[in-house]
This record gives sequence, structure tokens and C-alpha cells, in this order.
Amino acid sequence: MTEAIRIIGIDPGLQRTGWGIIETMGNSLKFIASGTVTSTSKLDLASRLRELHDGLADVIHTNMPHEAAVENTFSNVNPASTLKLGQARGVAMLVPALSGLPVEEYAPNQVKKSVIGVGHGDKKQIAMMVKVLMPRAQFSTEDAADALAIAICHAHMRKSRRLEKRFASA
Amino acid sequence: MTEAIRIIGIDPGLQRTGWGIIETMGNSLKFIASGTVTSTSKLDLASRLRELHDGLADVIHTNMPHEAAVENTFSNVNPASTLKLGQARGVAMLVPALSGLPVEEYAPNQVKKSVIGVGHGDKKQIAMMVKVLMPRAQFSTEDAADALAIAICHAHMRKSRRLEKRFASA
Repeated sequence: MTEAIRIIGIDPGLQRTGWGIIETMGNSLKFIASGTVTSTSKLDLASRLRELHDGLADVIHTNMPHEAAVENTFSNVNPASTLKLGQARGVAMLVPALSGLPVEEYAPNQVKKSVIGVGHGDKKQIAMMVKVLMPRAQFSTEDAADALAIAICHAHMRKSRRLEKRFASA
Repeated sequence: MTEAIRIIGIDPGLQRTGWGIIETMGNSLKFIASGTVTSTSKLDLASRLRELHDGLADVIHTNMPHEAAVENTFSNVNPASTLKLGQARGVAMLVPALSGLPVEEYAPNQVKKSVIGVGHGDKKQIAMMVKVLMPRAQFSTEDAADALAIAICHAHMRKSRRLEKRFASA
């Protein structure tokens, strides 16, 4: 467990896709970068998906993460908005896969449990806990904070999966 | 209207994505190719989306269409299946956009109206009418027949859009 693993967390959305990059080594979490990729709402859907693709591909190319984690959520508003989110999410999962990264999915309550300690809480609480867990973390949008939380969740989960494996083989 | 325009129609789905390529010149429709890209259900979602991406990118690279048309539908079963379809659809729209193709969307009833003449009808009727409109058309799955119907719909729609423009500027 001595090598640092770099993780990209992605909070997908057609309008705004948040991303956050952290490094985990043993019990430590280190903030690397965060941001938001936006799409131009007056463009047609295919061009907007291409904007998300190009933005995320650029982030991955620049920051070279080893693993990716994407939030697995759907809108309860109506099927049209669920379809819209699904399209953005398809691109958000495809881009790291095209770069050869393993991509894990986490439900919103898993992310909250991992960061806040309970399976519920609002976006402000998530942002606050990201700051507690990584005091040097910087983010300018709630989507970027969410994406960092998703990356932290993956750091915790991959560690417990490794421990489970070790006990299982012991 | 003397140049032949090559169109790819895509009927997206996570399990099976149908595709069909036709050429339109004036009033004529010519069948070029059709097929189905499948994803391996035991793989994780990101790898399956990558399979769809790679399959469609290969089809576009081989057949060099000028324009793309994708069906705009959502599942009424539940939000989880709408999200799943959305993810496949996001990839189906992204791949032609990455190759620089304009990508149009059509609702299922537009496609049916364009091919059958009315806004309703089952998949068998669609496949039959594709054969009537293009006797040389070959397809081995309903998804491929649907994709050809989407391409035919786009051929009709782009023609009426051009006529409208001509009248508007006359």
C-alpha cells in the first residue's frame, strides 16, 4: 500500500459535469485538482455531448488518474430529465474507459455515507466534509465538491475491498 | 440535389444498438449496409459503453456516412431502464459527433409516420415497409431494420427542410 493512487471522481450532468482529482496513499488523502466542464445549452445535443467528452478527455490527459469513480444517480423528476442525465453519464463513463481506466459506480447514499458518515445530507454538508477531510481542497462549484466526494468514496471503498481480499486469502 | 448523401441511422440500446446506412439522391433511396453492435452483459457498464463506442466508430470509419440520425426514445418501464438507455444513447450520439457528422434526433412516431405513413405500428410493419421502400435492403435483426427506418426518416425530413428553405427564399 505504499504507492499513491490517483483517482478522478465525476459528478455527471448535461449542463455541468463536476470533476475532482485526489491521491490516496495508505490512510492519507491529497487534493490534486477540481473543476467543472460545461456544455453550451443553445447547441444541439450531440455537440453538447462532444463538449463534455472533449473537456473530460482534456482533464484526464492533463492529470493522468489511474482509476475513475462516477456517481450513479437518476432524476426522479421525469423520464425526459432521466434520459438527459443518462446521456451525459454515458459520456462521463466512456471517456475514462477509452483511456483504459477502470470505472466504478457509486450510489449517492454510498458517497454521503463515506464522506459525511450517514447516507443522507445536502450538498453544503458534503462540501464542508470534503474540506474537513482534505483541508487544502479547492473547488468553485458544488458539482466539483461532489466530484471530490465521489473520489474520496472510491478511495475508502477500494481500501476496504483490498482489506477484505487480504482477510479472505489469509 | 444531384449529389448522393450517405446517412447512418442508429437505434440505440445498451444490449443491442442497431445501425443502418443508406444513400439518398433526389427521390431515390439506396441500401448500403446494416448491422447490430452488441455489448457483453457480464462486463461492467463502462466497458460495455466502450464496446458500443468501438463498434459504432468502426462502422462509421468503414462506411463514411455524411450525416447521422438517432432515435429519441425513452423507456416507460422505470427510471433505471431509462437511465440505461440514456447512457447507450449518449454514446450513440457522441460517436458520429466525434467524426464531425451532424446528428439529428427523431421521435419514434416521426420515424413511423415517415416510413409507414402513420405515427403508430409495430416493429414487423416497420421492417416490412423498409423492404417496400428499399427492396434490396438486408437486415438480420429488428434493431437493424429500425435503424434503416430512422435513416429513411432523416432522408425524407432533410429533403422537406431543403424544399421549405427554397420556398422561403423564393
